[in-house]
Amino acid sequence: MTDAEPTVGDLSEGQVLRGILDRLPASTAPVGPGDDAAVLAVPDGRVVATTDTLVHGPDFRLAWSSAVDLGYKAAAVNLADVAAMGARPIALLVALAMPDETPIAFVRGLADGLAQGCAELAPGCAVEGGDLTVSDTLTIAVTALGSLEGRAPVRRSGARPGDAVHVIGELGVAARGLDLLFTRFTDAAGSPVAVTPEGRSALDPADSYALDRQLRPRPPIADALRAADAGATAMMDVSDGLALDATRLADASMVTIAFDAGALGEDVALALGGGEDHGFLATFPEGVVAPGRRVGTVHPRGEVAVTVDGRPWTGHAGWDPYRDWDAGRG
Amino acid sequence: MTDAEPTVGDLSEGQVLRGILDRLPASTAPVGPGDDAAVLAVPDGRVVATTDTLVHGPDFRLAWSSAVDLGYKAAAVNLADVAAMGARPIALLVALAMPDETPIAFVRGLADGLAQGCAELAPGCAVEGGDLTVSDTLTIAVTALGSLEGRAPVRRSGARPGDAVHVIGELGVAARGLDLLFTRFTDAAGSPVAVTPEGRSALDPADSYALDRQLRPRPPIADALRAADAGATAMMDVSDGLALDATRLADASMVTIAFDAGALGEDVALALGGGEDHGFLATFPEGVVAPGRRVGTVHPRGEVAVTVDGRPWTGHAGWDPYRDWDAGRG
Repeated sequence: MTDAEPTVGDLSEGQVLRGILDRLPASTAPVGPGDDAAVLAVPDGRVVATTDTLVHGPDFRLAWSSAVDLGYKAAAVNLADVAAMGARPIALLVALAMPDETPIAFVRGLADGLAQGCAELAPGCAVEGGDLTVSDTLTIAVTALGSLEGRAPVRRSGARPGDAVHVIGELGVAARGLDLLFTRFTDAAGSPVAVTPEGRSALDPADSYALDRQLRPRPPIADALRAADAGATAMMDVSDGLALDATRLADASMVTIAFDAGALGEDVALALGGGEDHGFLATFPEGVVAPGRRVGTVHPRGEVAVTVDGRPWTGHAGWDPYRDWDAGRG
Repeated sequence: MTDAEPTVGDLSEGQVLRGILDRLPASTAPVGPGDDAAVLAVPDGRVVATTDTLVHGPDFRLAWSSAVDLGYKAAAVNLADVAAMGARPIALLVALAMPDETPIAFVRGLADGLAQGCAELAPGCAVEGGDLTVSDTLTIAVTALGSLEGRAPVRRSGARPGDAVHVIGELGVAARGLDLLFTRFTDAAGSPVAVTPEGRSALDPADSYALDRQLRPRPPIADALRAADAGATAMMDVSDGLALDATRLADASMVTIAFDAGALGEDVALALGGGEDHGFLATFPEGVVAPGRRVGTVHPRGEVAVTVDGRPWTGHAGWDPYRDWDAGRG
């Protein structure tokens, strides 16, 4: 290795950490990074907490995602889970497990992506703590914390028959982007090929947009908070696929979610089965003015959790990491 | 694989999750596991948050640590970081990244260890959320949250010249246990050999105790809270080695920590350089009755951060994962 490209193995934990912290916005927490733990203010006496991990292989490929993309995505998926409860994200804790040979430039890119994701999606939220470990498998475990600001938490279990079903955000766009990666950015053997600026500029605008949304999801955090303020009875982040996530919400609420196919866009199968857009599925009392667009109605629990135009959905429902991850693809 | 030994790859994420949740005590949080995020009560409007990761290879070997040991240790190291701030641990979030071929029995053991660690070390603290991912490298990323209950957070930066320096908990015991693993539980090639009941019973009582403390550290959480109540000016978890951690506290406080060798036990080098006991290093105004035992005095900042009987410490100071982890040992 050359002096020009130092790796994390060349530096102490403190040096790696400073390289990250220097790129993040200054903490505004009562106690930020540097102590055994951070201290965060949650004025109403309740804190919302969630954790989600990105693992090289199942969750991303370094050929496809830049370090900045990865940092952005790691922030976005966690911010979405906090907002789905009706809480404003206030802090991230980031645990990085990295091979020794990881370039320091990569770690800096990750920090830039985390900072950019927070700034664009949840202004005021910052990285307030973390952990560095050595691992053979690059792993980014993020915990996000949020403040309810007096709101009641919005759970999966609150949907009631007669409620309107809304989707806030996009459907199937990130899945289209994933499909592009597998079809346009692999070699003859199926191995990932780098997404270069040239490769991106060869895409038509809609494909380029879809690729960007796959690499950097944009959960509409502010709209989720507006949905909570508007009286959402149930809400969740749509991460694994609308049909699968709606099944989870329907099961938790003991109702059936009845989708209108006509409201799901041109490609209904993609809208129902494609994951990773990180929009929100929310239910509201009939007649409430609420964010997003109406895609169905909550019915009393029937034989199945989810229907499309009155029939059970038999297509692809979404992504389950332990059933769908094909290690051979890695 | 046989029906008798199902692996996580055989089951859905929901099934794996239920196998874990069924073994954990029931949640007492406003919103526990099962939603996009948990909601936890922190009545004084401040939450303490920390994250720490255990990775197979650098942090543990499956030949040496049982699943229950690992769950216990993952809880303990994070509970200690919360308590070091003067906060009572209230919740853990656990992100597991596991190979497909991980036996479900292993996952159940991890859950048992997490539950046992919480029950013994921080009663009332429970696993309130988590995440499951597939990974080639078994990784346990835990986030712990705590409630200050009106206390001022105790930081690393508050030590003042003239303060008494205390250690709360044991020194060098876990390091002695680690040394036993490398000397007594490896084969001729240096590869780990399973720690069996027979192998353990062949150890003398002191070695058996040290091995247990390496595999299941017992941070004295209640004593750390008593230290905060007694007016600790600075405190931190001793995880990487007393000399290294004292250097961090001294640097943050801009003081020198002057240890008395006579107060550090029979093996001064082991006490200063051995990590993983997860006791606490704390400073108190002179004359305060406080938990632990006095091991030195805070001096105005001199040429070095740490002295032993007035001289700089030139021995092993502790563990830095990016400098000390020798991949060849894995």
